[in-house]
Amino acid sequence: MPYQLHYWPTIQGRGEFVRLALEAAGADYLDIARQPPAQGGGEAALGRSLKDPAVPRASFAPPFLVDGDLVVGQTAAILLYLGPRLDLAGAGEADALWTHQLQLTIADAVAEAHDTHHPISTGAYFEDQRDAALQRAKGFREERIPKFLGWFEQVLQRNPTGDRHLVGDTLTYADLSLFQLVAGLRYAFPKAAARALADTPAVAKLHANVARRQRVHDYLQSPRRLAFNEEGIFRHYPELDG
Amino acid sequence: MPYQLHYWPTIQGRGEFVRLALEAAGADYLDIARQPPAQGGGEAALGRSLKDPAVPRASFAPPFLVDGDLVVGQTAAILLYLGPRLDLAGAGEADALWTHQLQLTIADAVAEAHDTHHPISTGAYFEDQRDAALQRAKGFREERIPKFLGWFEQVLQRNPTGDRHLVGDTLTYADLSLFQLVAGLRYAFPKAAARALADTPAVAKLHANVARRQRVHDYLQSPRRLAFNEEGIFRHYPELDG
Repeated sequence: MPYQLHYWPTIQGRGEFVRLALEAAGADYLDIARQPPAQGGGEAALGRSLKDPAVPRASFAPPFLVDGDLVVGQTAAILLYLGPRLDLAGAGEADALWTHQLQLTIADAVAEAHDTHHPISTGAYFEDQRDAALQRAKGFREERIPKFLGWFEQVLQRNPTGDRHLVGDTLTYADLSLFQLVAGLRYAFPKAAARALADTPAVAKLHANVARRQRVHDYLQSPRRLAFNEEGIFRHYPELDG
Repeated sequence: MPYQLHYWPTIQGRGEFVRLALEAAGADYLDIARQPPAQGGGEAALGRSLKDPAVPRASFAPPFLVDGDLVVGQTAAILLYLGPRLDLAGAGEADALWTHQLQLTIADAVAEAHDTHHPISTGAYFEDQRDAALQRAKGFREERIPKFLGWFEQVLQRNPTGDRHLVGDTLTYADLSLFQLVAGLRYAFPKAAARALADTPAVAKLHANVARRQRVHDYLQSPRRLAFNEEGIFRHYPELDG
């Protein structure tokens, strides 16, 4: 039975970290909200399924994954569940835990990237919080992007098995998620990301290597990969870059 | 060998979620940065240990836990590790995963609570981002607190074993963390929290029940429990409540 991913159908967003893991592993899955309405697709159905009182463990928000009787939400928890099943969590408990710790740090960076364009309220338009966004984006560009990517550079350089992967010498969901973080930063903040990546060559190389993996490459070329856009987490507002 | 918790010595902050788990389980642990400097305590030593190049898997930020050879950072990852060891993660994989999903949702609420007083930059003073803070706090009070606590109320009400615990019928780290979230909200936003808790009686009851547990009660009365203050995540700035 295929995994069912439930996420907003028109953005990469947080669901993309799950899509990448499923795609890189060649897993059988359905991206439910992107199916035709007759097959449960669409935003309205997604909203209804979140509110379904028959689900005892309904998630706070998308994404959530359904695997048989199990429903699991929160991006990092979904990856925690999928990791060993898709062989994307390293070898043994210590590697699985480190992979998860890396994912949680990526999630922190992603949340901060989101808040550059919505520093006041997710419920209000960007245009109505533009001044605060300009200020928040400045600190994100100048301090936080270098700090986050610098830390991942350090993780790669301290990996005793080499700097090709974050955890050991095999692909994990942390590698896939760091690929996505870099892709998002390059989309939203092309100038600031280029500067930071010039100082973090192993991170830049990991991004390129992940994109070249056959399954990931095929996915990125396929219509299943949604384009970045100004509804998602990573938005390109030129005034926020610099 | 006692667990070693490494966290800022003068605030509850994110370390408090780990302290509560260790205390509620009666675990043997050392809160390292609160030891005398001669025994590795103090903020300077904490900063040095984060930057120690001999640690292959150094964390991005405190808190981190040391257990023998293992170093694990990120609050939720620390609790993921401690959960089964302290018997605070429910029974079986599905419960452990649900406990973790709840923790991650609490972490999201905590991050939003922090950003009410630092919506622009964690590196700048509150006074320099006060206008943005007033706006962000309004949305947090009026929309986000009710939404988060309402969701936890639903989780309790849908628990097939009763509404005393979030997961099954035993204490988990999610219960302890929800206690701490409620305590923090009541400190930072006494008026808004009281309103939201009036609509979420099972959450309010869980908070009271956790506080009454013998080990938690003893901890809260002890000098090991730091007071809330205006250096932590939950800060009481009266102008942000209302």
